[in-house]
Amino acid sequence: MKSKVTYVSIDEATRKMLETVEIKPNFEVIPAYHAYGRVLSDDIVSEKNIPPRNKSHVDGYAVRSEDTVDASKEKTAILKLKGKITLGDEAIYSLGKGETYEVSTGSYIPNGADAVVMIEVALRRNGTITVHNPLRPGDNVTPQGSDIKKGDVILKKDHIIRSTDLGLFEIFNINNLKVIRKPVVAILSIGDELARQVERTGKPTTSHSIIISKLVEESYGLPRELGVASDDVMEIRSRLEEGLATADIVLTIGGASIGEKDLVADTVSAIGGPGIVVHGIKVTPGRVSGLGVINAKPVVILPGLIQSTIVGFYVFAMPLIRLMAGVKTSSPHCVKALINKDVNFNRLIPFKHVTFVKLAEEKGKTLAEPLLGDSSMISVTIKADGFVLSPENTKFIKKGEEVDVLTFPPAL
Amino acid sequence: MKSKVTYVSIDEATRKMLETVEIKPNFEVIPAYHAYGRVLSDDIVSEKNIPPRNKSHVDGYAVRSEDTVDASKEKTAILKLKGKITLGDEAIYSLGKGETYEVSTGSYIPNGADAVVMIEVALRRNGTITVHNPLRPGDNVTPQGSDIKKGDVILKKDHIIRSTDLGLFEIFNINNLKVIRKPVVAILSIGDELARQVERTGKPTTSHSIIISKLVEESYGLPRELGVASDDVMEIRSRLEEGLATADIVLTIGGASIGEKDLVADTVSAIGGPGIVVHGIKVTPGRVSGLGVINAKPVVILPGLIQSTIVGFYVFAMPLIRLMAGVKTSSPHCVKALINKDVNFNRLIPFKHVTFVKLAEEKGKTLAEPLLGDSSMISVTIKADGFVLSPENTKFIKKGEEVDVLTFPPAL
Repeated sequence: MKSKVTYVSIDEATRKMLETVEIKPNFEVIPAYHAYGRVLSDDIVSEKNIPPRNKSHVDGYAVRSEDTVDASKEKTAILKLKGKITLGDEAIYSLGKGETYEVSTGSYIPNGADAVVMIEVALRRNGTITVHNPLRPGDNVTPQGSDIKKGDVILKKDHIIRSTDLGLFEIFNINNLKVIRKPVVAILSIGDELARQVERTGKPTTSHSIIISKLVEESYGLPRELGVASDDVMEIRSRLEEGLATADIVLTIGGASIGEKDLVADTVSAIGGPGIVVHGIKVTPGRVSGLGVINAKPVVILPGLIQSTIVGFYVFAMPLIRLMAGVKTSSPHCVKALINKDVNFNRLIPFKHVTFVKLAEEKGKTLAEPLLGDSSMISVTIKADGFVLSPENTKFIKKGEEVDVLTFPPAL
Repeated sequence: MKSKVTYVSIDEATRKMLETVEIKPNFEVIPAYHAYGRVLSDDIVSEKNIPPRNKSHVDGYAVRSEDTVDASKEKTAILKLKGKITLGDEAIYSLGKGETYEVSTGSYIPNGADAVVMIEVALRRNGTITVHNPLRPGDNVTPQGSDIKKGDVILKKDHIIRSTDLGLFEIFNINNLKVIRKPVVAILSIGDELARQVERTGKPTTSHSIIISKLVEESYGLPRELGVASDDVMEIRSRLEEGLATADIVLTIGGASIGEKDLVADTVSAIGGPGIVVHGIKVTPGRVSGLGVINAKPVVILPGLIQSTIVGFYVFAMPLIRLMAGVKTSSPHCVKALINKDVNFNRLIPFKHVTFVKLAEEKGKTLAEPLLGDSSMISVTIKADGFVLSPENTKFIKKGEEVDVLTFPPAL
């Protein structure tokens, strides 16, 4: 009793996935200094004003602007220098009529002051400061709370932490953060030939599982290699069950088609319900990708030829991992480019077609060179900077046509 | 004797930097599995053919195409099934006239075979295979060396290692790689108020140095925090000397302007020649950024207000770090967007202006909302997804104008 492949569109596959898989992000508390690239699970609300008091924006002299209102080159305002307020000085000073305090960039200004004369335009002499121009209230002053107000939401739920945010946590003395736990993605490679290779080399990984592990990381998941299973139902089943017990998502590589040795789909269905939900997507390479679901937990079935494995991962596994990781931003990076050679699709015309491309800049334009070749060719994926996904029923891409290229990280 | 700030264009600053700083990438050998994101220092040449022999691209039956040349629905070709070649079977088989071997995707085909009939279109019965259509030589066969030829350059010098490359190293059994050593970037924060804060909190970092450390990592550098120095020439000098002795680049934050406490430029010049090469760039915020060079080693001087620190870093430090890291790709990511509010520049019109923006997708368009505010405001850099660099002598950006936004990682 072999299961059959029935090709459905990516949209249909995605709909079925969302109906059957439970997407419930979990949370964890981690040190804030470790949170780069993580997804916030709650809003962060400011518990204080930044700055806490009025500050000077420049090196200069804090004044009451009304003391300078008539100042001009001819009729200067001469103010009495009372002292100096240094950066970080938390004491409270007061400024009387006709007085000034020296202040530096970022230091608090005294009570009564509402403007700061820049050092470059003030004349200092014998304990006085001469001002030649009138100042308006607020000139060169950074008001209390003008940066961040107490009660402001400073970072929103779902935000992905960046460099600048790490500085913010320091300012607000935030030591721990509640973030979405990265989904654990177990990866199982399947195939007698791989099992023999593991026996020969002693390394429980394969070139494909190494690549897919990194793609999992790039998708905000935590990869966990389950090693290699032979083409043996009992062995595949016990490894899958191990994956289901310890991971949030299980990925299989290989054994995905309908040959005699393609045991994955049937084994998934045998483990539990609902079993295989999708087997076959209208995308080539990658068309025998599938999705099994066991007690609301997903098993993503990826084909074994490297280009299909990668395409299956991008269209199927990546969205699922990102969803579980709470990543709400639009998916991986896209650039516009001009195809620099005709591409003809000869078979499976009703399917979407993936064309791997190499990007190059030429005379201010981004060109995409199609990399053609058998879907087992690693040289194509090695040379590629990304791929183009052509819509269903497309027979060709013409030289000069503009295409959207989904680029691989690290960036071009 | 205070040094003076003389504003030069970014191009001029870059030219002076390249004249005076020695850019000599160093190399190191690291485990290949650790090389993700690293820069290759040499070409990698293939030592073997991939595949090493002709392989089947499908599950099916290997045939001599000449045996099927007249096959049709009416006049089928009936071939004798000799056996089965499984994936990973390294033995050498031979195919005689009128014979076939069962093969699976990726398995070697026997000598004599030059095509493979797909399992879906072949009829198997009583030890024979019936073929209804003629096959051409090469049908469903992946020829020896068709993926990668012995002697091919598989990865070029300067290439940044990606997920797929890690799989390649596994296939080629490459365990160690020569990569460009990441430049060590020492970061020194300067200011009495920061020194007092360190004393108070016991933490030898500042919000700015935490942010800049991560920006160094994003620029392919290795950050090393030197802590905080007071506004004291001897202390700054000894810390700078420590940085120069142990790092490839030294960054200072704060004390960059021309106030009484801005001691960095003079201290750099006092340490050695040529000393200050640039002090002042025609970009705002960030205009008091500078570059000192001591025995061909750079000291990048960054201003202390957060927006200026970040701008100074992007226009000055990032290109330098990337250059030393051997990163030849075009600089950080740029997206086109439409400004959704007028922006007016009121001062320093001959300078380039940086406008921090928040990006949003609306009706298929990318909109950039300008975030205005004092250059000390952390809220601006927190909200920003990137910035726009307007050319010299620009007075405004009009609502609806298309701008290039340099985006901050992690991606939007």
